[in-house]
Amino acid sequence: MTRTYSYESLVAFSKAVFAAIGAPEADAALATEVLLSADLRGVDSHGIARLSGYVRLWDAQRVKAAPEVRVIHETPSTATVDGDSGLGLVVAPRAMAIAIEKARNAGTGWVSVQNSNHFGIAGYHAMMALEHGMIGIAMTNASPLVAPTFSIERLLGTNPICVAVPAGEEPPFVADMATTTAANGKLEILQRKNGVAPLGWIQDKVGQPATDPHELKAGGALLPLGGDREHGSHKGYALGAIVDIFSAVLSGANYGPWVPPFPAYVPMPTGMPGKGIGHFFGAMRVDAFRPAAEFLQHMDQWIRRFREAKTIEGQERVIIPGDPEREIEAVRRAQGIPLLGPVVDDLAYLSEKFGVALPGAL
Amino acid sequence: MTRTYSYESLVAFSKAVFAAIGAPEADAALATEVLLSADLRGVDSHGIARLSGYVRLWDAQRVKAAPEVRVIHETPSTATVDGDSGLGLVVAPRAMAIAIEKARNAGTGWVSVQNSNHFGIAGYHAMMALEHGMIGIAMTNASPLVAPTFSIERLLGTNPICVAVPAGEEPPFVADMATTTAANGKLEILQRKNGVAPLGWIQDKVGQPATDPHELKAGGALLPLGGDREHGSHKGYALGAIVDIFSAVLSGANYGPWVPPFPAYVPMPTGMPGKGIGHFFGAMRVDAFRPAAEFLQHMDQWIRRFREAKTIEGQERVIIPGDPEREIEAVRRAQGIPLLGPVVDDLAYLSEKFGVALPGAL
Repeated sequence: MTRTYSYESLVAFSKAVFAAIGAPEADAALATEVLLSADLRGVDSHGIARLSGYVRLWDAQRVKAAPEVRVIHETPSTATVDGDSGLGLVVAPRAMAIAIEKARNAGTGWVSVQNSNHFGIAGYHAMMALEHGMIGIAMTNASPLVAPTFSIERLLGTNPICVAVPAGEEPPFVADMATTTAANGKLEILQRKNGVAPLGWIQDKVGQPATDPHELKAGGALLPLGGDREHGSHKGYALGAIVDIFSAVLSGANYGPWVPPFPAYVPMPTGMPGKGIGHFFGAMRVDAFRPAAEFLQHMDQWIRRFREAKTIEGQERVIIPGDPEREIEAVRRAQGIPLLGPVVDDLAYLSEKFGVALPGAL
Repeated sequence: MTRTYSYESLVAFSKAVFAAIGAPEADAALATEVLLSADLRGVDSHGIARLSGYVRLWDAQRVKAAPEVRVIHETPSTATVDGDSGLGLVVAPRAMAIAIEKARNAGTGWVSVQNSNHFGIAGYHAMMALEHGMIGIAMTNASPLVAPTFSIERLLGTNPICVAVPAGEEPPFVADMATTTAANGKLEILQRKNGVAPLGWIQDKVGQPATDPHELKAGGALLPLGGDREHGSHKGYALGAIVDIFSAVLSGANYGPWVPPFPAYVPMPTGMPGKGIGHFFGAMRVDAFRPAAEFLQHMDQWIRRFREAKTIEGQERVIIPGDPEREIEAVRRAQGIPLLGPVVDDLAYLSEKFGVALPGAL
């Protein structure tokens, strides 16, 4: 069962909750905008469904609502940022803004972040670059759920990468993807339905191919993009590893099996080698490579050529990365955001906990 | 049937051939080092087996043996390079050297290249950064062989990405991968053997899953990493697209279906929007983010933790990207490089064409 809420009513509710845990007004607004951009874009697993999770991390004193985010190391085109255990929803856009500022002066800007937390959807941060005529890149490590090829240990998160590229008359190219065959959010949907996962998404605790989505809770693991060695899982594993290294080994955050868990009830790993979780951001001015007008014109041509590609019979069209999310956003801005029953229950819990009025369904 | 040659004897032969087509001595040596690094690292499809292909491109006046490689646009952390139709084997390391020089001053360096040709293995170029205490990144677009998800058209090359990361006591992390399920070189091996390709590697000309490796010559296509939509092929497609955009839309090279073919007998595409093929290189000083000693120590810890991960029963070990290639290189430097009969025939053809002595087999 779902109920549908206007974007604006969820914004007001989320801001009030972040304010209630002590976030300054600007931070509460920013965290809300980032969080709800996931709901708008159809990535429901990373949207307001996680609001109570962030609050539980605050309850457990694992995040600060009013962090002092600061640069601890820099060069003309780089910076390392200490997120001061802040909400990733606030730390990440601040760090991306630094990357954009660096790019303004040096052509490109690259920011590695330590001591942060879950940053919502990668797409929001990467897309910040677009309005500045820049290509944006965002990635983060995450709690270990993924086994490297040939292993039974969960050593990597779903470690997403987003690359956002501006175009001229066409909408931007926005590729936002987990480096696993399937994002964890898709597994969670199957778990709720007691559905069957396609082969290649998960393995069981001894590393054999599995289709029961509950195997993940019984010692199993998500599989890197590719699924198995014959289908290139070593490449998905390498991509997830690159995200981990850029986000955490460069910044001084935790990596591999030591990345702190999102659920506040899961104990912290022992022997942690860094601080918090790590992110990595990049911004590249397109006019640092060629005149912007030329770039945008050719990007339009690139997009049109791919969009017009001949399809396999039965397939409607070839998709440009970012198309589906943009289309969902248009619908949800107009018609509202549907939330599942358990998510509504979570909001009711937060409403009661903080004395914040629950939004009315449409 | 294979014959085995010493690395040194193949170096001498290759240098003589590049000199014979008019490459200056330094260029002939550089092109040879890049080309043979593929043979050393076990990527036989990109090594001396391609020497006659480069010569045929020169015969067809599609490459210049003595190009004037020059920077046509730059900022403190970026440059765009015009390869002047040179051998990619020469243009690419020159461009990577510019990225490294930029990084020395600005923290990072990013170079997009137009008007180039096939650059050999990505790994050589990315690994140039390692001795400078930098992370190296190399990518290139390539002749269209890959169909985007849901399409029957070949619009992308196998568009490889390499990321090389220095470590302290451990050998470096070097992930060098095509953004397809299987590299084209693996298909070529199956074609020679009349073997069967695993499902998920290729589709036939109407876009149905195929296992006959010869389908690629009958209008079929290689598949993006992931294989099909259910297994994440839209992610492999997006990765290949990112490589195409960074390498060619940023630089002013050709992209998508307009990338010039490597075989000199294949006609050039019509309506080409740019110059030659494109590459993209990056170099990031690790000490632009944190003190180098700290980075190297944590990178060692990262590598050791993954290498010691528990394996699936029957699997010997978890592989760190770069391990297999480094191990093959040690063997081949000591015991020589095995070449297949048709490759030896190609060398004999070049020997006769240019009056260059054929190396003796070991």
